[in-house]
Amino acid sequence: MRVYHNQLEVRTSGKGTYEVTEEIQEKLDKANVRNGTVTIFVQHTSCSLTLMENAAPAARRDVERFFEKLVPEDADYEHNDEGPDDMPSHIRMVLTRTSETVPIVDGKMQLGTWQGIFLFEHRRDPHRRRVHLTIIGE
Amino acid sequence: MRVYHNQLEVRTSGKGTYEVTEEIQEKLDKANVRNGTVTIFVQHTSCSLTLMENAAPAARRDVERFFEKLVPEDADYEHNDEGPDDMPSHIRMVLTRTSETVPIVDGKMQLGTWQGIFLFEHRRDPHRRRVHLTIIGE
Amino acid sequence: MRVYHNQLEVRTSGKGTYEVTEEIQEKLDKANVRNGTVTIFVQHTSCSLTLMENAAPAARRDVERFFEKLVPEDADYEHNDEGPDDMPSHIRMVLTRTSETVPIVDGKMQLGTWQGIFLFEHRRDPHRRRVHLTIIGE
Repeated sequence: MRVYHNQLEVRTSGKGTYEVTEEIQEKLDKANVRNGTVTIFVQHTSCSLTLMENAAPAARRDVERFFEKLVPEDADYEHNDEGPDDMPSHIRMVLTRTSETVPIVDGKMQLGTWQGIFLFEHRRDPHRRRVHLTIIGE
Repeated sequence: MRVYHNQLEVRTSGKGTYEVTEEIQEKLDKANVRNGTVTIFVQHTSCSLTLMENAAPAARRDVERFFEKLVPEDADYEHNDEGPDDMPSHIRMVLTRTSETVPIVDGKMQLGTWQGIFLFEHRRDPHRRRVHLTIIGE
Repeated sequence: MRVYHNQLEVRTSGKGTYEVTEEIQEKLDKANVRNGTVTIFVQHTSCSLTLMENAAPAARRDVERFFEKLVPEDADYEHNDEGPDDMPSHIRMVLTRTSETVPIVDGKMQLGTWQGIFLFEHRRDPHRRRVHLTIIGE
């Protein structure tokens, strides 16, 4: 058993979902851990992590539109000095996830057929986002 | 320290919450890990995982009704070719969870008094759902 | 590699977010694990766990107000015999998180600059809340 740390940088070009499944699998291939888990941890408070449907782009757009309506930019927020997309980004992040732990068997993440891993960017401006990977296994 | 993989199959008969706490504890008993964690990972994008109140069935029905209202079937979704319950299932899954990691002490999951582990089925039709368990410990 | 269990007790004085980042880091310092993960697990169904912005108190108040509106106390709940704040607490808990796993490098949690770890209390009355920590590493 050992612990292996790694990092991804995700360059976002505004609000939306960015798939990182393949980049994570490539890091696992290099780490050469056959059995264990990978914990994916997003180090930010204005973007988040989600696993979801990765085949239909329309489904991703529906998810993004749902969050635009549920947590609107034009609500009356007390914390409003960093732009209209700032406070909604913090709330959307609380409603989604920061970390997920995915099983690894025979070196491969055990995702379902339609599961992809996404960074969910909630800010309008481009950002460089850091995703920490911790692989525990043998 | 070792890694132990296992799987549950959950047969659902339509929308609702299905408790899997006991089935998971039985798998732990067989694995005979005394101290560590179990990571519960749902391998689907139209059902999800949640820990919640397991004593009052009325509380579970209230949770289910809340999600029916928050993510309605009759909204105007772009991705609508797999039935009215399909796109809401993906959104409800993003709003809940895919993985949870539960501590194991003396062979038992350290759940609170009222905590149960549930598969949250978001589709109307019956499904066979796969839940992967990764036990790490000693 | 080893497993180390620990517990926090958080005394809440009513609804709100209570930061526990420093208390958790202190427990890690004592455990003296240099590399690995800490899994934070809340053992309750009427409070939850969230990572979020820890610098601006106004942002936390906006998050709290958002949940008051999204899951109102005065909705028509079937499970209503434990007070108007009970059923909303279970739903808010389903919408947020029970466990998060945070990487540890050189003995320190790898949180982003603005990330704090919070217990999110959903009940009006004071409570003593138990948070279980499982540290896995070397």
